[in-house]
Amino acid sequence: MKIEVYMENVGRKARATARVLAGTTTQAKNSALSATADTIVASRASLRSENAKDLAAGRDRGLDDALLDRLELTDARIEAMAEGLNEIAALPDPVGEITDLKYRPSGIQVGIMRVPLGVIGIIYESRPNVTADAAGLCLKSGNATILRGGSEAIHSNQAIRGCIHAGLRTTGIPEDAVQVIETTDRAAVGELLRMDRYVDIIIPRGGKGLIERVSRESTIPSIKHLDGICHVYIDDQADPKKAIAVADNAKTQRFGTCNTMETLLVATSIAPDVLPELADIYRAAGVALRGCPETCRHLPEAVAATEEDWSTEYLAPILSIRIVDGLEEAMKHIETYGSHHTDTIVTEDLGRARRFLREVDSSSVMVNASTRFADGFEYGLGAEIGISTDKLHARGPVGLEGLTSRKFIVLGDGHIRQ
Amino acid sequence: MKIEVYMENVGRKARATARVLAGTTTQAKNSALSATADTIVASRASLRSENAKDLAAGRDRGLDDALLDRLELTDARIEAMAEGLNEIAALPDPVGEITDLKYRPSGIQVGIMRVPLGVIGIIYESRPNVTADAAGLCLKSGNATILRGGSEAIHSNQAIRGCIHAGLRTTGIPEDAVQVIETTDRAAVGELLRMDRYVDIIIPRGGKGLIERVSRESTIPSIKHLDGICHVYIDDQADPKKAIAVADNAKTQRFGTCNTMETLLVATSIAPDVLPELADIYRAAGVALRGCPETCRHLPEAVAATEEDWSTEYLAPILSIRIVDGLEEAMKHIETYGSHHTDTIVTEDLGRARRFLREVDSSSVMVNASTRFADGFEYGLGAEIGISTDKLHARGPVGLEGLTSRKFIVLGDGHIRQ
Repeated sequence: MKIEVYMENVGRKARATARVLAGTTTQAKNSALSATADTIVASRASLRSENAKDLAAGRDRGLDDALLDRLELTDARIEAMAEGLNEIAALPDPVGEITDLKYRPSGIQVGIMRVPLGVIGIIYESRPNVTADAAGLCLKSGNATILRGGSEAIHSNQAIRGCIHAGLRTTGIPEDAVQVIETTDRAAVGELLRMDRYVDIIIPRGGKGLIERVSRESTIPSIKHLDGICHVYIDDQADPKKAIAVADNAKTQRFGTCNTMETLLVATSIAPDVLPELADIYRAAGVALRGCPETCRHLPEAVAATEEDWSTEYLAPILSIRIVDGLEEAMKHIETYGSHHTDTIVTEDLGRARRFLREVDSSSVMVNASTRFADGFEYGLGAEIGISTDKLHARGPVGLEGLTSRKFIVLGDGHIRQ
Repeated sequence: MKIEVYMENVGRKARATARVLAGTTTQAKNSALSATADTIVASRASLRSENAKDLAAGRDRGLDDALLDRLELTDARIEAMAEGLNEIAALPDPVGEITDLKYRPSGIQVGIMRVPLGVIGIIYESRPNVTADAAGLCLKSGNATILRGGSEAIHSNQAIRGCIHAGLRTTGIPEDAVQVIETTDRAAVGELLRMDRYVDIIIPRGGKGLIERVSRESTIPSIKHLDGICHVYIDDQADPKKAIAVADNAKTQRFGTCNTMETLLVATSIAPDVLPELADIYRAAGVALRGCPETCRHLPEAVAATEEDWSTEYLAPILSIRIVDGLEEAMKHIETYGSHHTDTIVTEDLGRARRFLREVDSSSVMVNASTRFADGFEYGLGAEIGISTDKLHARGPVGLEGLTSRKFIVLGDGHIRQ
């Protein structure tokens, strides 16, 4: 079948199923999630043998160890996939929630109802567990899903699809509620990105290349983030102990995550109280330091930072440090070089905390807390499909609520407008 | 100056001002709105004389009477513009509102803060009062605004800009908070639609041609609606009196608005009880009827509806009527031919009302109320910048809240992630 015909068919089926899903009960959705989890656990052997085909093909193609590791479905990861689906089943159903229902002077009641977005397209790489996680979140939020995983995980993803469809069959929800693209033809991605008549939103999960391709080619809105250039600003009114704890954790807890600090900003007068101790911590953790001239005077081991350093997401044990006059200069630096992801101020001064919270234009803005907290689980969203740095629709960690839309509802009793 | 250079400059100034506006107090914004309202009233003579230039030029260019009427600034319209600004000043400020602030098991507090979008571009036609209304709503919601009115209203719009800038000057808010494009060069619109580095959202207010151009050319997300093909479905469990009242009001209260009913759906068994009386009402109101074959049997004056009729927004005294089996067929018709704007069911049956509310995928879904209620003032939003039929971000009538974004805030006391 030609790829356009195949994808057209996928899109049409998704749209038709979305209407059914809008009326599907919470119980049916939860049963499907639990049944899928059970099937995944029961299918461990076949999941591992299908996964083995992907791993063998990956080794033949010369994939590096990191990629092969992400591709592997271990027993623990299979258990975690099932557990994740059960956790999604346990979350409250956002669909149909009515808020702000109020009587108006005309006598009508006006409120807001949360409803599914409709059809969600997800494009992802490597990790096969995304197939189950993303399908689970989209199903719980009442959306039809079109999943397009990486070609390197095709056998694993199709095996997981089998488990999901088995779970759906136990409840009468159409299997087309979750479609996993069967072809590895790269043209399928291009088709998906232009199916705006069928698909309401695209969520790319993967590296920069993928996200930039989606930004460039898609005619459909997307939930995405490009960079996580996160800052910690240590104000001169900071408690040095808290400042050191936060600046340590924000950098060294994990290096490769998008909410890891990439630049540390320190107010001039507090620099001597915090920088030497932080330098010891970073040295012990193997973090290389790059600094402004003033920082380099404080810390001889720091190398001079270039202009490019301030706008680089290292995702690695590298940190750039800049000494600033105070709050105003710190906020200006963040506005100029940041990526609107997550930024923290450490201060005991309430007025400065209030200004930072209000004026810094990032998806998460924090006071006296590590940037590493920017995460759906930590925020109580239950699970996240990604972190959005866009300002429209969902912003920050995106959980079930971010996969829904809202509509106005009006209740009357024969009311007419005068 | 070349148009690209001029627009680049406008965009850069807007972006710089947006950062200032994010920290501007409610009081300063309200003072600016009131001062602008006062200036508008005090400038009545000069507003009318500038408007007279536009009217004279319009007559020379052969604009039709309807357009000239929309262009005219009468004393009453000048008063209404000022009154509108005072009403916006009286609305609660959405910016900075913190909701859902909760302690998490880790000890951090996580909440959501409402913040301005940043820079809003508005493209509109004819009515000069939009200059004041849109600027007022955007200023109150803390956004910098770039306004691009129609060339036919250039003198009027620049005169209103003068009043707005006079109002801003009394408070110290930079004049660049509201920029009104000074050139009538149509290339300015094309530039504005591609300034995604400076502009966060585009709002087109005008005819279909404008909205389609924005959809086609813009690299910036927009708040827009294309069509308002609104339905009233009279269920067989409807109270005929309420049904007739709603179906009358939804069509005849005003013909040219987007929330006017364009198609009436009637359940087979109730058709004899409501259609003849409704036909009398429509005849008296000069509404021409087009119907399905069954409708034409009931109402000899109805002409046969074509397939095209079901997906046409008449904005005129024309109504298409279709007799359907019941709820299921009605919802299917709305899904197939509707525009996801506003749809109503008239029924006394609670189960059907619940299904209609949940399953009909429109920006406003109503029970026993006229579609004409779909309006920002009627919903209690205070004022609206437009009605969105998109599912992302704002949906339905868009008031101050739709001109804002949200971000997560996290409060800790030196908290780190374990």
